Amino acid sequence: MKLQEIATLLGSRVPKDAADVEIRRISSLQSARGDDISFMVSDKHSAAALQSEAAAILVPRDTAIEGKVCLEVGDPYLAYARVALLFEDRSPEFGSGVHPGAIIDETAEVASTACIGPGTVIGAGCRIGEDTVIDARCVLERGVTIGRECRVHSGATIRRDVVVGDRVILQANAVIGSEGFANARDGARFVRIPCFGTVIIEDDVEIGAGTTIDRGNFEPTIIRRGARLDNLIHIAHNVEIGEDAALAAQVGISGSTKVGNRVLIGGQAGFVGHIRIGDDTFVGAKAGISKSVDPRSKITGYPARDLMKMRRIEAAQQELPAMVKELRRIRAEIKKLQQMSS
Amino acid sequence: MKLQEIATLLGSRVPKDAADVEIRRISSLQSARGDDISFMVSDKHSAAALQSEAAAILVPRDTAIEGKVCLEVGDPYLAYARVALLFEDRSPEFGSGVHPGAIIDETAEVASTACIGPGTVIGAGCRIGEDTVIDARCVLERGVTIGRECRVHSGATIRRDVVVGDRVILQANAVIGSEGFANARDGARFVRIPCFGTVIIEDDVEIGAGTTIDRGNFEPTIIRRGARLDNLIHIAHNVEIGEDAALAAQVGISGSTKVGNRVLIGGQAGFVGHIRIGDDTFVGAKAGISKSVDPRSKITGYPARDLMKMRRIEAAQQELPAMVKELRRIRAEIKKLQQMSS
Amino acid sequence: MKLQEIATLLGSRVPKDAADVEIRRISSLQSARGDDISFMVSDKHSAAALQSEAAAILVPRDTAIEGKVCLEVGDPYLAYARVALLFEDRSPEFGSGVHPGAIIDETAEVASTACIGPGTVIGAGCRIGEDTVIDARCVLERGVTIGRECRVHSGATIRRDVVVGDRVILQANAVIGSEGFANARDGARFVRIPCFGTVIIEDDVEIGAGTTIDRGNFEPTIIRRGARLDNLIHIAHNVEIGEDAALAAQVGISGSTKVGNRVLIGGQAGFVGHIRIGDDTFVGAKAGISKSVDPRSKITGYPARDLMKMRRIEAAQQELPAMVKELRRIRAEIKKLQQMSS
Repeated sequence: MKLQEIATLLGSRVPKDAADVEIRRISSLQSARGDDISFMVSDKHSAAALQSEAAAILVPRDTAIEGKVCLEVGDPYLAYARVALLFEDRSPEFGSGVHPGAIIDETAEVASTACIGPGTVIGAGCRIGEDTVIDARCVLERGVTIGRECRVHSGATIRRDVVVGDRVILQANAVIGSEGFANARDGARFVRIPCFGTVIIEDDVEIGAGTTIDRGNFEPTIIRRGARLDNLIHIAHNVEIGEDAALAAQVGISGSTKVGNRVLIGGQAGFVGHIRIGDDTFVGAKAGISKSVDPRSKITGYPARDLMKMRRIEAAQQELPAMVKELRRIRAEIKKLQQMSS
Repeated sequence: MKLQEIATLLGSRVPKDAADVEIRRISSLQSARGDDISFMVSDKHSAAALQSEAAAILVPRDTAIEGKVCLEVGDPYLAYARVALLFEDRSPEFGSGVHPGAIIDETAEVASTACIGPGTVIGAGCRIGEDTVIDARCVLERGVTIGRECRVHSGATIRRDVVVGDRVILQANAVIGSEGFANARDGARFVRIPCFGTVIIEDDVEIGAGTTIDRGNFEPTIIRRGARLDNLIHIAHNVEIGEDAALAAQVGISGSTKVGNRVLIGGQAGFVGHIRIGDDTFVGAKAGISKSVDPRSKITGYPARDLMKMRRIEAAQQELPAMVKELRRIRAEIKKLQQMSS
Repeated sequence: MKLQEIATLLGSRVPKDAADVEIRRISSLQSARGDDISFMVSDKHSAAALQSEAAAILVPRDTAIEGKVCLEVGDPYLAYARVALLFEDRSPEFGSGVHPGAIIDETAEVASTACIGPGTVIGAGCRIGEDTVIDARCVLERGVTIGRECRVHSGATIRRDVVVGDRVILQANAVIGSEGFANARDGARFVRIPCFGTVIIEDDVEIGAGTTIDRGNFEPTIIRRGARLDNLIHIAHNVEIGEDAALAAQVGISGSTKVGNRVLIGGQAGFVGHIRIGDDTFVGAKAGISKSVDPRSKITGYPARDLMKMRRIEAAQQELPAMVKELRRIRAEIKKLQQMSS
């Protein structure tokens, strides 16, 4: 790909004579070779940029690196993402079309441009959209609908009647549509409550490896457009995850909790059921959230509190053992003062 | 199904003229249509009940909702569970009988009424009981025994010699019988300790999606009758989970710990090895438990403490930053008092 | 196996007349039968040793148990591990050779002594070493290299171009080489950053069931020689885990963090990205680590602190509610003293 094409995509300008430079890869400053493009997020990395062998470097506006071909962009990290997508190999892992080792029910509708890998099982009434790639050994139970340009990585399981939008990525061994964890009690024994709902995964959602998303009781569990879920996350029945929300690995969200749009959640955080997390909220890693929070909150800790307040509490905790001793000393000195003044 | 049949099952009475009403589904008050039955757990939901389109509503004893057909029951939530089970579709995902895409060792004994889905692999010497359904792409390694009326969801892996009782549900991608995490040290290097035990899953147990249960060293790991495990739980080697215990998602239990009967454990709680959790204990979400506890304990926090004590500690933590300042002020004032009195 | 052979392996001496005793298994003191060997880690278990039916017992040096055949060893636990490995059944779960139900690309190179189980899918250009066993329903995407004497348990997924060394064990449903969780933001929306790196699993590594290891951005994610990872662990892109490190279940490590050699990490601990954990560090269960730590640190808690300091803070927390009251009393008494002295 010519450097000029990349510059045009980014709305940037190519320095003189560099328009025809052939770019074959994107790489970090350190690992770049002579036909790579690289990126410098900020001035902090200017030493690495000077030494990089990259043919061209994406840099912040009004930045020059001596002896280097630079493309100025508003946000070099975003530009990196965009250029990286140009060079990504998204070809199916096991060849194009339907692999003879796939097991597809005759009532399933698979678009002519879709790819189905070996060992993958597709149930009755499933519909698979154009240009969607399903790799090896996945399961789509009966009645699953998947849109176009999706990628379902090897080993993912999509249970019955789940609805998946367009351009969705489901990573290896993810489970979508498992039964919710709901039980009534009959004396000491549990009586299982079956789930009649499903899961809806909207467009442009990405779900990490090993993540499990339970189906809803009556209403569906919903992951809204553009949300990002990392690995080994647990989403219980009837949860909603808002648009463009991002959940780091091993987060757990209990039943019926609603997470707002653009909420960011750190790894291993946990949420009780039936609460609401307002839009644009930030939740720290390992936080335990047991109450609803307003939009634009910043919370962390367990029990979760305002971020700055929690930082002050954490700082004060350091002094706790000394405080215990100081309190004892003070008690003794007061006693003495009281005796003196009595 | 006639309303009279449902009432009979629940030991409830049908109002006049409603015995022959045909019920086709169960649903929430909000989403119910004209041929659904619904349920009202308490008076809090009486407004929703009034507006519901449900043909009939399960209600607490001595409750009437104007203009609605009500079935009075002792516990509407339990009644909901029971009625929901009547309407659940438990048919196999990939048709009845043994799918031609299943790979079954010739020495395995599969009951004539069992269903085996496509891509599922069943090893030598396995025994599958009557009316058990195994969906797509599961693995049963050699020597696995499964009882009757079980459901093994797509993608589950049951490793060798594991014993599963009757009416057990294993959800998608669960792993039963993985190797325990046990290592000796030879200087800096680890020497793996192989596991000779197995896993026993007793009757009526339910295991969540992606949950992993390790096999025992010599004695088996045991999940006792009626226990409920949610998704992405880790159960280490030689653990025992008591009857009718319930573990929420992402709980982790280290080797040889014994969890009593009817213990309830909140999500993301973690337990060290070789401890005993007494019967009927409640463990809060995210708790970290490093000591044995008596029956009927209520504990939470990390390190885990008595629930009420922990609540008081958490409340006091809020005041910590102010306490630090107050202590400094007091110190200064005492100094002044001491100077005055000297 | 004759007891003499076991003694020779361990560099121990067999008591007179016992050299030819036939040993068929290893077991715990309690469950041992007459043709088992067992082990006693310390004197604490001497009562159980006395009552054991074991044919011989591995004991610490200079230990005798009345009426029992004892093999004295420097470290009975280590000796137990070594003897246990002698008795382990490592045969493939589904017979030797390549099962006809495996789906193997014609360009893959599978060593003649390797075993491939039913339902396992092996992609283009894969290479599988001598004596490696891959059980049922695994996936190796294109370009995967696996060394010799490895064991890949049923249901594991190894994504494209991942490199696995010799004698590596990957447990059921582990995922190696999933996409990293990296996103740039374009206004409110995320732009995914594709990963061009891979994962390198060095020799003698063991990975638990359901654990997910993401591939690197440009440089690889690396699990170094001899490291042990338990179940349901999350390893993000570009993480490095040092030699002989051990991570308990449900640990999560964020992107680019480097964990040193021989580091021990308790269950459910979590690490932010881009930090360094020095060699020989101990990290407590459930700890949250947000800063780099020096070699030989002992840390725990969240936020993680020095272990002994944290224990003192935890002890002091118990007194917090009483401290709040005491501070109020002291304030009142000081007021009185001040009034008296004014």
